Amino acid sequence: MLRLVPLAAGWLLPVGPAVPRLSPARAWPLPYSGFLPGRAAAGSAGGGWRPVLKTPKGTRDHPPAHTVLRDRLLAAVVTCFKRHGAAAIDTPVLELRETLMGKYGEEAKLIYELQDQGGELLALRYDLTVPFARYLAMNKITNMKRYHIAKVYRRDNPATTRGRYREFYQCDFDIAGQFDPMIPDAECLKIVHEILSDLQLGDFVIKVNDRRILNGIFAVCGIPESKFITTCCTVDKLDKVPWEEVRSEMVGEKGLSPEAADHIGEYVQLHGGLELIEQLLQDPKLSQNKLAKEGLGDMKLLFEYLTLFGITGKISFDLSLARGLDYYTGVIFEAVLLQQENEHVEEPVSVGSVAGGGRYDGLVGMFDPKGRKVPCVGVSIGIERIFSILEQRMKASGEKVRTTETQVLVATPHKHLLAARLKLISELWGAGIKAEMLYKKDPKLLKQLQYCEDTGIPLAAIVGEQELADGVVKLRDVATRVEVDIPREKLVDEIRRRLEP
Amino acid sequence: MLRLVPLAAGWLLPVGPAVPRLSPARAWPLPYSGFLPGRAAAGSAGGGWRPVLKTPKGTRDHPPAHTVLRDRLLAAVVTCFKRHGAAAIDTPVLELRETLMGKYGEEAKLIYELQDQGGELLALRYDLTVPFARYLAMNKITNMKRYHIAKVYRRDNPATTRGRYREFYQCDFDIAGQFDPMIPDAECLKIVHEILSDLQLGDFVIKVNDRRILNGIFAVCGIPESKFITTCCTVDKLDKVPWEEVRSEMVGEKGLSPEAADHIGEYVQLHGGLELIEQLLQDPKLSQNKLAKEGLGDMKLLFEYLTLFGITGKISFDLSLARGLDYYTGVIFEAVLLQQENEHVEEPVSVGSVAGGGRYDGLVGMFDPKGRKVPCVGVSIGIERIFSILEQRMKASGEKVRTTETQVLVATPHKHLLAARLKLISELWGAGIKAEMLYKKDPKLLKQLQYCEDTGIPLAAIVGEQELADGVVKLRDVATRVEVDIPREKLVDEIRRRLEP
Repeated sequence: MLRLVPLAAGWLLPVGPAVPRLSPARAWPLPYSGFLPGRAAAGSAGGGWRPVLKTPKGTRDHPPAHTVLRDRLLAAVVTCFKRHGAAAIDTPVLELRETLMGKYGEEAKLIYELQDQGGELLALRYDLTVPFARYLAMNKITNMKRYHIAKVYRRDNPATTRGRYREFYQCDFDIAGQFDPMIPDAECLKIVHEILSDLQLGDFVIKVNDRRILNGIFAVCGIPESKFITTCCTVDKLDKVPWEEVRSEMVGEKGLSPEAADHIGEYVQLHGGLELIEQLLQDPKLSQNKLAKEGLGDMKLLFEYLTLFGITGKISFDLSLARGLDYYTGVIFEAVLLQQENEHVEEPVSVGSVAGGGRYDGLVGMFDPKGRKVPCVGVSIGIERIFSILEQRMKASGEKVRTTETQVLVATPHKHLLAARLKLISELWGAGIKAEMLYKKDPKLLKQLQYCEDTGIPLAAIVGEQELADGVVKLRDVATRVEVDIPREKLVDEIRRRLEP
Repeated sequence: MLRLVPLAAGWLLPVGPAVPRLSPARAWPLPYSGFLPGRAAAGSAGGGWRPVLKTPKGTRDHPPAHTVLRDRLLAAVVTCFKRHGAAAIDTPVLELRETLMGKYGEEAKLIYELQDQGGELLALRYDLTVPFARYLAMNKITNMKRYHIAKVYRRDNPATTRGRYREFYQCDFDIAGQFDPMIPDAECLKIVHEILSDLQLGDFVIKVNDRRILNGIFAVCGIPESKFITTCCTVDKLDKVPWEEVRSEMVGEKGLSPEAADHIGEYVQLHGGLELIEQLLQDPKLSQNKLAKEGLGDMKLLFEYLTLFGITGKISFDLSLARGLDYYTGVIFEAVLLQQENEHVEEPVSVGSVAGGGRYDGLVGMFDPKGRKVPCVGVSIGIERIFSILEQRMKASGEKVRTTETQVLVATPHKHLLAARLKLISELWGAGIKAEMLYKKDPKLLKQLQYCEDTGIPLAAIVGEQELADGVVKLRDVATRVEVDIPREKLVDEIRRRLEP
């Protein structure tokens, strides 16, 4: 369960106003061997050169409030992955160009390539799945349950308001190995269900299909094998555009006959549960196709396992689901959040995919010199999308989040007590207490207390000359403003006691 | 404090042997639109094409055991950064090329640049300091205490055995703002002291110097200002090569007079504490130089604060310390681990730098259109180096680390009980228990128990037909092999009780 602690604190970290001081840099000859045009003029207001202050297109900085929220989100996802016994790995952001090429089909054009600076031809990873397959083959690992949370890169058209960036986190959980059918596949769906429930994102549905079923459909509709993939790509658009548009792309661009397209349309617009599986298993044409039969048989098994997990209520066997990537070979799935636009609308509106995955049994074999296969199934949680939703929700609610965890501000009530502050804060750090002080020789007490309120620090430990003479520290509760003298040797224990949850 | 839990478990995660099954991929037409030469032959043993199975030069994968160790290391560092009240930010791996150019001096040649694929000219970040300065200027932030832990990229000659890679983590803590002298600087040194002490890496020393003192020395030795930076670079080599070599580079390559070089040599070979600062403040020439005097005055103040922190025992004012990067303007420092080669050697041997940093008061101004400065001081923890040391220590000790956190294996003693396992494991996951099961319909009990021992799972929850009939679960302690029947409704509580620390 993810909980946000609302606090009356600012989003960015202010540190009390500063006393002006001659910066050492002013007296120092400019140490920069700048080779930007007009560098020397950069320091003067009238200079011709102006630095371009931005992050690359489709990327963004994460300020502290984002980072706190994102760290909590990632922690919730990791907790789930660990609950299912996964180990973590990490791979480089850079891969050999040839490792990535030939794995993504049409999407390969979105791969970022590095300049040839003398050496290997490199690219930025496009997802975490291909690097995982490369890792398995390289280390001759034939079974492994791993998670990997890291950034990936796509030269896509960013749609940043909907949480779509060129640099974004992926949170992947995959099970590699030769196992009995549908057991690991069911666990992947269970994981999606657990994470979306834990995060309390509202109602959702997990669409499930199988590439073998789609393929079987194409076959019985008379599509030649050479057009399976491209037809699959067109079907994949059904979640965004109506059937009529998909149909006209099939007939116009992809060159299918109108009859074949209509026939496909009869199948891919179906969705349901176990009863639909049974119905298709009885379908006179589909039941004759080996691939479709295998896929439908496994789908039935999957529903059996999901029933035991108690999650079929959120699962929809949806024949329009195709998934963009080339490497899937069996079960595919995608979770979408549903949003009741208002209570009177009956059909919930989809607000987009927040998790997806499937089975890819051929990918590891592409890296093995002898083509040895390691069957894999995995899921990727769309953390950026979820983050956008939570962020919007936070903004709408006016909730604010503490960006630091400081427990105590060490303060002094009058001048010439910097040494006393430095000694006391050092004692607190030594005891593991999270403590700050203002970086001024003689800050005003009011400024120090204001800093506590601005940043949500709950306690202030105040030492003046009287306290030093008496061997005590004045401990102030920032919220209630109550102050109590605590013997110095008991201060750490008292702070710990006060901060107990 | 970092503790490793030794366990008799393998480094990689084995999942019990598998029952062969026809992979769905075999019946599926190859879905890859590969455009690598000979791709079609990749699946067959006799094909001409062989995949290159490697990570790019100077990079590496982190298998689970590495990742666990590294995550603990990073957690220890983050704990310290949070203890000092820092907020976290994140910035993109990609920066505009022009953001990085002109900031690193000679080292700029090591920056990875991206191919021009139509759009902005991009590069991979070289450190976290320049992106931080860009972030401050872009958001007009004039004070902030932040940490940032992320990967950076340098096309350096990798020395992987010494923990030097082309992709590596940096752990940075920085304080930006106009404050009273040396208070934030002293905190940065305190942080290095705390982290190196907490990690129990053995004895260390933190060398401290100031660019203003070095500059003052160059000035009184008659070096023209235009040669300050290049002379600084040469001095920086003193930790690796003897003075004679540094001297001959000064005279030969850099064109200093032999007298000037000798004069510099008298200064830069000095190291000590407060008494050395006092001595130099009395130095007839240096005391006449404004920059040196300012630097020495601040150094004295710094030592005063470090005395209050109780850490001067590990601090050495070392005039040979120069630091490679151009952007430093004041205090600079570097922590090195010392290793007693054997007890009879009196002088400890340095095993390399594990942290470094300094003051850079001009960098933010380089990004501000009006050149407005934001003084900054910061420290970077050399986590890769520390990781290498810990890794070697682990290998030497034969210690092994658990790579998963699974608490319970759900097992069955005989056939046809997959449904019982799926139901039970679902209950455990629902209660937040970390649980696994083998992905087989009918695994042998011995294999299941062996999996517990191989991966360090402490408990097995066994359900057979008798247990189902009796409404109990047999809970087995894997280490002692003791089994007890627990009523099903009390199982979760009993597991929690057993796993209490």
